[in-house]
Amino acid sequence: MNLLLLFDRDFIQTDTVRLHDRRWQHVASVLRSSVGDELNIGVLNGPVGRGTITQLTADALEMVVVFDQQAPAPLPLTLILALPRPKMLRRVLFSAASMGVKKIYLIHAARVEKSFWKSPLLREERLQEQLMLGLEQAADTLMPDIFLKPLFKPFVEDELPDISGDTLSVVAHPDAEQPCPRDANRHITLAVGPEGGFIPYEIGKFVSCGFTPVSMGRRPLRVETAVPALLARLF
Amino acid sequence: MNLLLLFDRDFIQTDTVRLHDRRWQHVASVLRSSVGDELNIGVLNGPVGRGTITQLTADALEMVVVFDQQAPAPLPLTLILALPRPKMLRRVLFSAASMGVKKIYLIHAARVEKSFWKSPLLREERLQEQLMLGLEQAADTLMPDIFLKPLFKPFVEDELPDISGDTLSVVAHPDAEQPCPRDANRHITLAVGPEGGFIPYEIGKFVSCGFTPVSMGRRPLRVETAVPALLARLF
Repeated sequence: MNLLLLFDRDFIQTDTVRLHDRRWQHVASVLRSSVGDELNIGVLNGPVGRGTITQLTADALEMVVVFDQQAPAPLPLTLILALPRPKMLRRVLFSAASMGVKKIYLIHAARVEKSFWKSPLLREERLQEQLMLGLEQAADTLMPDIFLKPLFKPFVEDELPDISGDTLSVVAHPDAEQPCPRDANRHITLAVGPEGGFIPYEIGKFVSCGFTPVSMGRRPLRVETAVPALLARLF
Repeated sequence: MNLLLLFDRDFIQTDTVRLHDRRWQHVASVLRSSVGDELNIGVLNGPVGRGTITQLTADALEMVVVFDQQAPAPLPLTLILALPRPKMLRRVLFSAASMGVKKIYLIHAARVEKSFWKSPLLREERLQEQLMLGLEQAADTLMPDIFLKPLFKPFVEDELPDISGDTLSVVAHPDAEQPCPRDANRHITLAVGPEGGFIPYEIGKFVSCGFTPVSMGRRPLRVETAVPALLARLF
């Protein structure tokens, strides 16, 4: 955790917060901080600053807080991700959030197991929790928006054209001849398939929406490796 | 698994293999292949080709094999990695192997917990197993070399200069002012610290060996995200 994320409800005065949940525990047991120590803090969807611990008891933590910085700039990228298996989803959400992705669509695809859509991890509060851990890792505060699209065809036909708009739109595809662009320097829509990839029909649908299939090389990567690799290559 | 990795001991004739371990199980239960199906195969540290299933019984699999391709070219990079916690080590080894890294040094650093060095995962056969899974993911056959260096100072003073030699040598450091180079197009030695980063003394040691501290941006990344991101940015 490189930043302690604060919520409006934590403020007991305009410059004082009081915490008594997972965050208090983390400061007390993992960071082993003491009164007088400074911590990096940020307000959810707000600025970043420093908190000075004024009280640390057996059940709560109080800090005086000062905010003097903006959160890092969002990555100008929309991620469209075929729903991975739950364990992998957790890690991919964490890494995407930690790299600054602010808009994520989880979509169905032929090689996505239907049972994945029943995972409790897809409940809104569980998704938010993963994304929040990613923000805390990245010392960021701006919560990503996440959308579930369990039907492939209506999504790509009715919604995708507006989402991709005039961005540089690429779909990761191990068999593609074109290498993934580097340092693209513009807004990107990136689609990443399930393990085994999108099927040809699905690739065709993306292409008809203006997406270019691109590859990271001859080695097919697992989704949790491919996502950070693609993001780092594109920016 | 995008390639079934074969060993010399699997060959019952020059063009026939017989498998009855995890790989037979994977083909029978996960891929649900049948007699006549073709599979991507490769010989450990050898060529890549196709196998045609000639027998698939309740306890073994036989294939006639043909080899007609070289394994993908190794990534010209040596990875020096502060030993991560075991669960993360597994994933980092998998992703580094799947991206084509062929030389990995696991080293100690001030922020590496000493207990990590006692993990059973560091036994040679367990390390090989993770790397092999990465090769199977990447349809690669060339087994990476991995070296354990539990003492920081003797490693950087006595061995590192020869390892980094005249490569482009970079140490990932979230506070660095210089961004990670893109598309470097030469042999690279990349050092990646533990969670929390290398301490200033350690960064100084790398710098005195000719390493440049480089950053992936304002957001600090978890090691398992940083490694694929750095590899994708550098190549």
